[in-house]
Amino acid sequence: MKLLQCYIDDIIKTALMEDINYIDAAADNLIPPEHTSAAYYVAKDSGVVCGIEIAKRVFEMTGGNVSFNILINDGTKVKKGDIIAELKGSTLTMLKGERTALNILQHMSGIATATNKCVELVEGTKASVTDTRKTLPGLRALQKYAVTVGGGKNHRYNLSDAAMLKDNHIDAYGGITAAVAELRKHIGHTVKIEVEVRTLDELREALANKVEIIMLDNMSCGEMKQAVEITDGAALLEASGNVTAENIRAVAETGVDIISLGALTHSVKCFDISMKIKTK
Amino acid sequence: MKLLQCYIDDIIKTALMEDINYIDAAADNLIPPEHTSAAYYVAKDSGVVCGIEIAKRVFEMTGGNVSFNILINDGTKVKKGDIIAELKGSTLTMLKGERTALNILQHMSGIATATNKCVELVEGTKASVTDTRKTLPGLRALQKYAVTVGGGKNHRYNLSDAAMLKDNHIDAYGGITAAVAELRKHIGHTVKIEVEVRTLDELREALANKVEIIMLDNMSCGEMKQAVEITDGAALLEASGNVTAENIRAVAETGVDIISLGALTHSVKCFDISMKIKTK
Amino acid sequence: MKLLQCYIDDIIKTALMEDINYIDAAADNLIPPEHTSAAYYVAKDSGVVCGIEIAKRVFEMTGGNVSFNILINDGTKVKKGDIIAELKGSTLTMLKGERTALNILQHMSGIATATNKCVELVEGTKASVTDTRKTLPGLRALQKYAVTVGGGKNHRYNLSDAAMLKDNHIDAYGGITAAVAELRKHIGHTVKIEVEVRTLDELREALANKVEIIMLDNMSCGEMKQAVEITDGAALLEASGNVTAENIRAVAETGVDIISLGALTHSVKCFDISMKIKTK
Amino acid sequence: MKLLQCYIDDIIKTALMEDINYIDAAADNLIPPEHTSAAYYVAKDSGVVCGIEIAKRVFEMTGGNVSFNILINDGTKVKKGDIIAELKGSTLTMLKGERTALNILQHMSGIATATNKCVELVEGTKASVTDTRKTLPGLRALQKYAVTVGGGKNHRYNLSDAAMLKDNHIDAYGGITAAVAELRKHIGHTVKIEVEVRTLDELREALANKVEIIMLDNMSCGEMKQAVEITDGAALLEASGNVTAENIRAVAETGVDIISLGALTHSVKCFDISMKIKTK
Amino acid sequence: MKLLQCYIDDIIKTALMEDINYIDAAADNLIPPEHTSAAYYVAKDSGVVCGIEIAKRVFEMTGGNVSFNILINDGTKVKKGDIIAELKGSTLTMLKGERTALNILQHMSGIATATNKCVELVEGTKASVTDTRKTLPGLRALQKYAVTVGGGKNHRYNLSDAAMLKDNHIDAYGGITAAVAELRKHIGHTVKIEVEVRTLDELREALANKVEIIMLDNMSCGEMKQAVEITDGAALLEASGNVTAENIRAVAETGVDIISLGALTHSVKCFDISMKIKTK
Amino acid sequence: MKLLQCYIDDIIKTALMEDINYIDAAADNLIPPEHTSAAYYVAKDSGVVCGIEIAKRVFEMTGGNVSFNILINDGTKVKKGDIIAELKGSTLTMLKGERTALNILQHMSGIATATNKCVELVEGTKASVTDTRKTLPGLRALQKYAVTVGGGKNHRYNLSDAAMLKDNHIDAYGGITAAVAELRKHIGHTVKIEVEVRTLDELREALANKVEIIMLDNMSCGEMKQAVEITDGAALLEASGNVTAENIRAVAETGVDIISLGALTHSVKCFDISMKIKTK
Repeated sequence: MKLLQCYIDDIIKTALMEDINYIDAAADNLIPPEHTSAAYYVAKDSGVVCGIEIAKRVFEMTGGNVSFNILINDGTKVKKGDIIAELKGSTLTMLKGERTALNILQHMSGIATATNKCVELVEGTKASVTDTRKTLPGLRALQKYAVTVGGGKNHRYNLSDAAMLKDNHIDAYGGITAAVAELRKHIGHTVKIEVEVRTLDELREALANKVEIIMLDNMSCGEMKQAVEITDGAALLEASGNVTAENIRAVAETGVDIISLGALTHSVKCFDISMKIKTK
Repeated sequence: MKLLQCYIDDIIKTALMEDINYIDAAADNLIPPEHTSAAYYVAKDSGVVCGIEIAKRVFEMTGGNVSFNILINDGTKVKKGDIIAELKGSTLTMLKGERTALNILQHMSGIATATNKCVELVEGTKASVTDTRKTLPGLRALQKYAVTVGGGKNHRYNLSDAAMLKDNHIDAYGGITAAVAELRKHIGHTVKIEVEVRTLDELREALANKVEIIMLDNMSCGEMKQAVEITDGAALLEASGNVTAENIRAVAETGVDIISLGALTHSVKCFDISMKIKTK
Repeated sequence: MKLLQCYIDDIIKTALMEDINYIDAAADNLIPPEHTSAAYYVAKDSGVVCGIEIAKRVFEMTGGNVSFNILINDGTKVKKGDIIAELKGSTLTMLKGERTALNILQHMSGIATATNKCVELVEGTKASVTDTRKTLPGLRALQKYAVTVGGGKNHRYNLSDAAMLKDNHIDAYGGITAAVAELRKHIGHTVKIEVEVRTLDELREALANKVEIIMLDNMSCGEMKQAVEITDGAALLEASGNVTAENIRAVAETGVDIISLGALTHSVKCFDISMKIKTK
Repeated sequence: MKLLQCYIDDIIKTALMEDINYIDAAADNLIPPEHTSAAYYVAKDSGVVCGIEIAKRVFEMTGGNVSFNILINDGTKVKKGDIIAELKGSTLTMLKGERTALNILQHMSGIATATNKCVELVEGTKASVTDTRKTLPGLRALQKYAVTVGGGKNHRYNLSDAAMLKDNHIDAYGGITAAVAELRKHIGHTVKIEVEVRTLDELREALANKVEIIMLDNMSCGEMKQAVEITDGAALLEASGNVTAENIRAVAETGVDIISLGALTHSVKCFDISMKIKTK
Repeated sequence: MKLLQCYIDDIIKTALMEDINYIDAAADNLIPPEHTSAAYYVAKDSGVVCGIEIAKRVFEMTGGNVSFNILINDGTKVKKGDIIAELKGSTLTMLKGERTALNILQHMSGIATATNKCVELVEGTKASVTDTRKTLPGLRALQKYAVTVGGGKNHRYNLSDAAMLKDNHIDAYGGITAAVAELRKHIGHTVKIEVEVRTLDELREALANKVEIIMLDNMSCGEMKQAVEITDGAALLEASGNVTAENIRAVAETGVDIISLGALTHSVKCFDISMKIKTK
Repeated sequence: MKLLQCYIDDIIKTALMEDINYIDAAADNLIPPEHTSAAYYVAKDSGVVCGIEIAKRVFEMTGGNVSFNILINDGTKVKKGDIIAELKGSTLTMLKGERTALNILQHMSGIATATNKCVELVEGTKASVTDTRKTLPGLRALQKYAVTVGGGKNHRYNLSDAAMLKDNHIDAYGGITAAVAELRKHIGHTVKIEVEVRTLDELREALANKVEIIMLDNMSCGEMKQAVEITDGAALLEASGNVTAENIRAVAETGVDIISLGALTHSVKCFDISMKIKTK
């Protein structure tokens, strides 16, 4: 697990305590602790699995008496019917942890699957697919990890680790040149500057200031092609705004380096995975 | 705000600390604290607003020097171009709080909008639209509140406040009749029992046990109509499984009392709202 | 343990950090870590044990080098002198965890014991004994679990999972009929409505509105008998207010379904259990 | 408030979130936010008020739109019917905060009342009444504060701030003399040593080691009188074990300096206070 | 305050609860809440003030009834005897918050002062002074902020926001070229790569791979001069290891771009500031 | 470990999450999870090791797949080149936990080393060396533990566990005699009173009130000698203010009982320890 265990455990704990506020009114009153079952996780669609170690951890935190055998690791593509994991042990623990584990696994797999679709659509171009800061409260690291599992890359993790100048910053400071100069006085040497531009003139001003990354905000593919020519490798170009599965290939073919999509994390369609308990 | 302020504040704090891990590398280094702006929130699409008081609270927690005038309250329908709120005050605070506020507002409004669409589709039938426990970690109360703002109702909040018997519980305990009898020995008098049935025979067994709610699991509309006739008001009937905007009207017309949809909370499409800073 | 491990661990951690703010000034400075002892838990009175697995967990969290052998499980009646558990291992860990473990165990056993006494007093009637929301801050789940261990049932866990209409709600909304009608528009299908009534007329109005539960507030046994007759099984009747060990049998014999007692959790007499270290 | 605001706020937050897990199913769905009421807190018995500022704070944290006018401060004795505080403002906030505020206020007032009774019983003797470490998890500071409000004094707050040698420590280290000598090598100059003795011989050994405090463990009044004579002011003497309202006067009259009672905090009878909303 | 209020508040809360575990045994028992004083903060030495708004916040969180008038803002140089702030209000609150406020203010001012000394020593060269990740647990943002207040810049905030390849990474992956190539496949476009080199040959290899930053690990000034020549502006050069006030000027004159010093945060000498209460 | 595991774990968790905000951009992308190494901790200077079990725990919390063999325990003196611990296992875990472990270990060892130097300087006198409340936020217990490991003793842990009367308390209450008398009415029997005096007259007044400890505030060695004579064992005398390694011997030789030094915790020079990964 690349993410810190203590970060993961906090999320699971919060989710478990939301779901089992007191006790499980059905299972805790019906299922004897010593009752055991075998179960499995099965994909109900085609996609990319993500979060399987977190699902496993849910059952450790719920009871610790369920073995969870991972058959398919994060990043692997599955198709409908593929068995992702096999569980054995306490039926009670399985039932109490079921929903929490699936809610996380389905969300992360949904992100990985959607990202992967975009990555495949731009294959052969130089463009990489990235996320944005449009994430859900408390879930940013989970979601950004899922993007990488789907083959995407991460945009900045937060406002501290890269300096992006948007129109509001630029307007408030009196233009790109002034703003970039001021910023360079303050930021550390590990921090890149990215400037958002809306016109080719702004692009030229950003290039004149040798900023590392330039975001082309809601430009047409025609404009973006021009931007690529003007830039000629002097900065990384990021296409942003209204990119969808329908137009992503065209955007990539303009020659931009990065395509960022808010929808990867702000409009996630969960990937359907079920836990099935085997009847004896 | 129906939700507790301290619950809301915890979510905002977590989101702010994810987004501003140290300082805002751009705004904190460029925008003087005394610089002020006017801004507004504008809908980019048609939908139902939800979470506006939380958005307001984000700016209080980020700096406290921004007035946030709510023009459109939770539950109101807006169309593209409608102004939802007006802000005045510290530009720095606006920029630092912008993304956190929008991420929450867009997610909640997305849920309210999708719920509302379903509610309108079943208008005139007796069916109510409800959510499920398929929510995102840490966000259950936020999401369930958004469902009610969209006109839906909430299914149980967690495993403690209603006892739902699913196939696994029933199998593990030896049938509906035995399981219900056992459960009645333990649960408090405020807890309803809901039984999931897959066949009309199971429905009849559940009815014989006088359970308050029966979930019809993945039944066809034909079966559901029969279930409604057989039940004849003796229990509440909940339709569940694979309900979409396409088929929800047909499901409602079978005469069921409740239609529950996981997608309301597990596959949310965010509702697009922008914050625009007015140029002077 | 029916309660979530992570919930239990938080309570133990808080208690340990209250009790060992820095180090144990006596034991940490005197007892060598390798010094071992054998000890046991002994009942000093007759009652019902509750919380023994939490006591065991205290020593795991304090040092992890003490074996804690549970001889008597939650829900079992003990009499003075009965050995409840045997410990072996680090003397230092035993001394540091002793008070935290006993404080929890004695409180929970006190609740279970008092509940059990009431349950036995109403034996043979149809009345069940329940708690209320009159619990201590941060301890509600612990306390409600102890009530069930004593043979009682739980009233609603919180304000979200059942809707109780008290006089203030009813007055503010203009009568039982109006309030119930309004409530039904909003609450989910798993939420029961309970109405508090002070007179038989109010009882009749509540019954006319087909509410699931009616609380008879501070009624005399005579009134309650009439209430049972009038209701005739059409709703669950809950007796509430000034019930004590002295009058609970009489209340139960009126035929009410539920008797709720705040004292079970708000006025707990701890059940005396000692940890004795065996001298060698 | 002598206790830290941030400590109090954490306890209130925990209690509110236990009680309003999602929303208040009755009040939030019935009472309009703009509906106002007047209410008051009234004593239902004779006793000492404690925690009134915390009760006030509950309503600030629940909604902030209720004025809470304290008429009777912590430490004041009231009798049945006395009005303790007057509230005005949002009915919704009053109803949502009511139980949380009362649960805390009644518990703390119960402790202050019981302590005060003991303090009055020993009036005229030199004995002071103190608590122990037998407190409830998470509530130690609240409970110990209530003891002082009732006129008692606090024993050590935790294992770090005084070094008490009990039989187990002494046995494990080879006698009082050896244990005290070792301890003196380690503890800071602000830490007092208290030694628990079971016999007058042990008392003499403790005195020979010039420890500051000696606890007389479960001694008879006769033995305690002898202990007082032997000690002759050379150390503080603490009577401990099985002290009740019945025998506390006799214990005090033996001449001991301190009488500690676990029951003050481990077996609290809540003091009955009601919130009454005035009908208009 | 550039740092988030909620981050600051958590640190203050932790510090207050460490320092006032229960109540202030002296002040809470002696000073009447209505007693007021005037006081001031005075520098006992020459240095740079940092953390003054946090000191102010401590008194808001301790009692809220002290006005705290900041005379000297973060980043200003003071000399012995300069008055930094004036306080008026509750004596009790002043005494309870005094140590917590000073502990933070003195630590942060100590960092700012030491940083400033280094910054002045390299004045006129192109070198900037930066911190490292050698910070104290829980205090990284506080400490890094203090470095900027002293005129320094921040190195990466954590392991996520820049990729530094040290010898262990390089050895484990088979050389600089292979490691950089692999890393580029994974990291996002906002993440810079820094490579630590121990020889001029390694420097040449790093340059050949066009990494943005190269750390010269424990090189002599002679070697660093050669490195500057070889690099000729193609990457930023960071001098690291054993830099002190004694040799920092010589290091800066080699022409490196950045000099990083662990001691700025791992070996802080507090800057002496006193709170004086004016006698009346 | 004398400190509570749950306290330690909270500090490590905070530090890890500061340092690995998302993932380790270098190690997580380069080092395969199955890659193993051997490493060791080596002292770079002479001093006292402290915190080695916490360093070990860091790796358990980071990955759990590194064996950490402690060769030198807390309190042992080392010299440059001494091997303190040997590690074997996952290279990835070693690299991710390295800085967090060292930051804590070096800080604690720095405190223990500085304390030990003072303790050795006063050897043969009756004076003990103690810390103060001048500690860093969130780290008080860690720091105070390190002082004891260095051979020092702890002054009071917080404002609750001893009552120190400083000039401000005394002035606000009208003199030492009045303040001590009032205090005695309130504090528990385990709480010592310490009075800060600035003159020998104040010393005499404090002695007349039989307080347990008297702090001689910034007195000259001449004055302190007189104070020792006047006191003649009737109270413990604490020297405080401007004590350094240069003058501590002279201070000790005045005959005071305790010498307290803020610098032990507020101006810590870290003790240099490195983690070296063995090349294969």
